[in-house]
Amino acid sequence: MKVKRNQKILLFSPEKNFEIFVDYEENGEVHTHVGKVVLKKNLKYGDILKSSKNKIFYVLKPSLSDLMIKIKRKTTIIYPKDAGLIILELGIRSGSKVCEVGTGSGAFLTLLSSIVGSKGKVYTFERRRDFLELAKGNIKDYGLGSNIEFNLRDVEKEGFPKIKVDAVFVDIPEPWKIVPFVPRILKPGHVLGSLSPNIEQIQKTKKEMEKNGFIRIRIYETILREIMVRDIGTRPKEFGIVHTGYLIFGNLANYLQ
Amino acid sequence: MKVKRNQKILLFSPEKNFEIFVDYEENGEVHTHVGKVVLKKNLKYGDILKSSKNKIFYVLKPSLSDLMIKIKRKTTIIYPKDAGLIILELGIRSGSKVCEVGTGSGAFLTLLSSIVGSKGKVYTFERRRDFLELAKGNIKDYGLGSNIEFNLRDVEKEGFPKIKVDAVFVDIPEPWKIVPFVPRILKPGHVLGSLSPNIEQIQKTKKEMEKNGFIRIRIYETILREIMVRDIGTRPKEFGIVHTGYLIFGNLANYLQ
Amino acid sequence: MKVKRNQKILLFSPEKNFEIFVDYEENGEVHTHVGKVVLKKNLKYGDILKSSKNKIFYVLKPSLSDLMIKIKRKTTIIYPKDAGLIILELGIRSGSKVCEVGTGSGAFLTLLSSIVGSKGKVYTFERRRDFLELAKGNIKDYGLGSNIEFNLRDVEKEGFPKIKVDAVFVDIPEPWKIVPFVPRILKPGHVLGSLSPNIEQIQKTKKEMEKNGFIRIRIYETILREIMVRDIGTRPKEFGIVHTGYLIFGNLANYLQ
Amino acid sequence: MKVKRNQKILLFSPEKNFEIFVDYEENGEVHTHVGKVVLKKNLKYGDILKSSKNKIFYVLKPSLSDLMIKIKRKTTIIYPKDAGLIILELGIRSGSKVCEVGTGSGAFLTLLSSIVGSKGKVYTFERRRDFLELAKGNIKDYGLGSNIEFNLRDVEKEGFPKIKVDAVFVDIPEPWKIVPFVPRILKPGHVLGSLSPNIEQIQKTKKEMEKNGFIRIRIYETILREIMVRDIGTRPKEFGIVHTGYLIFGNLANYLQ
Repeated sequence: MKVKRNQKILLFSPEKNFEIFVDYEENGEVHTHVGKVVLKKNLKYGDILKSSKNKIFYVLKPSLSDLMIKIKRKTTIIYPKDAGLIILELGIRSGSKVCEVGTGSGAFLTLLSSIVGSKGKVYTFERRRDFLELAKGNIKDYGLGSNIEFNLRDVEKEGFPKIKVDAVFVDIPEPWKIVPFVPRILKPGHVLGSLSPNIEQIQKTKKEMEKNGFIRIRIYETILREIMVRDIGTRPKEFGIVHTGYLIFGNLANYLQ
Repeated sequence: MKVKRNQKILLFSPEKNFEIFVDYEENGEVHTHVGKVVLKKNLKYGDILKSSKNKIFYVLKPSLSDLMIKIKRKTTIIYPKDAGLIILELGIRSGSKVCEVGTGSGAFLTLLSSIVGSKGKVYTFERRRDFLELAKGNIKDYGLGSNIEFNLRDVEKEGFPKIKVDAVFVDIPEPWKIVPFVPRILKPGHVLGSLSPNIEQIQKTKKEMEKNGFIRIRIYETILREIMVRDIGTRPKEFGIVHTGYLIFGNLANYLQ
Repeated sequence: MKVKRNQKILLFSPEKNFEIFVDYEENGEVHTHVGKVVLKKNLKYGDILKSSKNKIFYVLKPSLSDLMIKIKRKTTIIYPKDAGLIILELGIRSGSKVCEVGTGSGAFLTLLSSIVGSKGKVYTFERRRDFLELAKGNIKDYGLGSNIEFNLRDVEKEGFPKIKVDAVFVDIPEPWKIVPFVPRILKPGHVLGSLSPNIEQIQKTKKEMEKNGFIRIRIYETILREIMVRDIGTRPKEFGIVHTGYLIFGNLANYLQ
Repeated sequence: MKVKRNQKILLFSPEKNFEIFVDYEENGEVHTHVGKVVLKKNLKYGDILKSSKNKIFYVLKPSLSDLMIKIKRKTTIIYPKDAGLIILELGIRSGSKVCEVGTGSGAFLTLLSSIVGSKGKVYTFERRRDFLELAKGNIKDYGLGSNIEFNLRDVEKEGFPKIKVDAVFVDIPEPWKIVPFVPRILKPGHVLGSLSPNIEQIQKTKKEMEKNGFIRIRIYETILREIMVRDIGTRPKEFGIVHTGYLIFGNLANYLQ
């Protein structure tokens, strides 16, 4: 399976678990601390390249986790452990129409765009022009975006334009300020979700959701542990990320009828 | 948004967080411990119904988590906290072609089918006829399946038919026995994943993956905590699921060339 | 090592990990669902007894964890995972003088009394007579108590009598109400600790500690997972306790000088 | 409460949660990045000192956790979250006689010595002279040690001298090699414990314990999360220690009779 021009590849060196994320260009050169790697013509996923210092590099297909974690960013991003659960709780699938408030660097948007596909649609809203431009650049860089509508808009103040979606996800510092606008755009019975690092944010969001017709509200925290299986022994990694955020989800009752 | 005939709905009673998962049929009757609920004509998501004992029920759209957790089952299922991460690590998106070994009750298949959509394809393999029939019934019951190829086949013994896929997921008691067959069907550079409850299973799978050209192997455990935000106080739920399984992922190097 | 009369022993049946906690009396009879066990004369720890249904029981010495968990109780108790850390953070050792507010069933008191020993002292305060009587009975039943001063007193309203201690631990629903009284009885530079199930309780306690001269405040949550190592595989137990409470500790600055 | 000469104190600066662990000497000088602190005559716990750069430092009593974590070390140490549970599971209290194999830097020994007190006894065994000397120095530095018997001895090869103890704790890389010697020194019915970072070590130790008459074997992992309660929000700390080790405990049946 040939790598197309401008596609992202992951170069992986097994020696020290070193990996680097690059755009493919024929005869492009990648400079690493273990030498220069030349991206040959007709590169295929799984190919083995050698650096000028004779180190092996594998050409790998980046997963959705890789695309999210390795994105160029100015903001904190949503981690795969949380992003995966959000997709499931919001019921996002091929063909879904979804709304995201808080585009940020576009990490979660990458996932949304990939999953809803060409028959789906993602409306993303961001009030900071610099973030929106960064996200647009990232999305373009990933070869995605034909199903995304980017909106430079402060939803807290202006609310939403006239859209109707299967799911809404809010990732801004004060998500509760968005909640009152959500019932106008979310299909009844469907799910609104949000992520916040602090529990007080979740408490406020929950209260606002209850006031605005959301029911069956559930709140989760996910924890990810990396396990090291080696000849010298098996155990979780000693240090790592302990907390990213709390997740809140609720279904909209048809209270507008 | 009208509910279609035979579609699954979630009836949710806010009183005791009671919920029931039913097929919609016009004038269908649902019997609960708080009275009979009649599913009226032209039911819409978000609608409010009253039981014969005057209890309120909301008509909600089941999320992908709901479809997985509430499936009819004879086997253990993959939980949303794990399923979401698997999707991301395997890079499964709208249009992907994926292979699943170990259909079981079809819970994860529900997710795969929903995410890859009409342009994608899921090849699922199961050696027990009773499980395969159960899964087929569940998938049909959910209105899914046009993108699924069900295979009654013992892959451990017979290997795979001639297919080529973007991702492989193995969920059987001895996943390491499948690993040697995977390089023939998985695109190079792409990801194989598996889930096992015991660490020894992961250790064996890892060894077999290393022997068969898989690199960048990573192993995770996810933990989910439900948080209770109530007027009387905020804290994680006291009792719950502590462990489901370990996840292993690896990329295929192009060693067959 | 002979078991003394009235001492607590743990009878452990390896067959189904069944265990029962009893007082030793010569020729005493213990009735279990696998038959009657007679406690022979000159019983020694480690001895093997047979029930009338020919099942083996080992005579074991209860650990401090056992004494705490198996205590007769009308209240929630502090679990060993938390109790151990409290002892260390409060610096409680042989000879310490400590104050406990909220005697409850006496589980943590059992630990305090055992650790401070005959040269130490435990002042315990409880406002409910029924709890205090229960705790007294439990402590007597365990053969402890000569170093304990039981106080029936509502510290929230009356404050403390004239004592001076190395450490204070508060385990009541509104610990913040006790905090203003603590600087009069706690040696400067030493530690006050408290445990609460809800985070709001900790937030209020922290605020009150800051107002009353406590510094270096730290808050923890401990999680315990039981690991099953069996021939069929190794993994954490699937279900269990997910949350007990949050712990807060702070040192008293000498602000009264 | 006056600080005695040579006693350890914790100087705590609230400004950046900076703390430093020093020996008290009258007019001793402590050099920090926020200036020099002079330890005045008649220093008392809780006192406030000012550095030459006018920064406040509180004089605090180190807890047992502090003594363990801040010890001079050449080895990994046992963390308070694990140490506390070990004390409880082993039933160690004022007056206990305990045996420790693997003195290391003496961190856990500090705790054992403090808890068993002057009526108790700790036999500690270490095969490396440099570790034993380090531990002796640390214990002396802490003003402890009159109840400790230090043994330079390779128990794996030579076994134990003739002692009888209430509890045994093993903290070496191959604990299973010690297990066969334990029944000669541990009182029947009492508990042997061990800590290992890798699960394979625990599996081997468990097998050896079963062969040597240990029953009621239980294995745990403890996880500690630090919670940040601040005006800007409450959440667990984002990064930290994820894994230290697995704990195993078992009671000795009187199989030698």
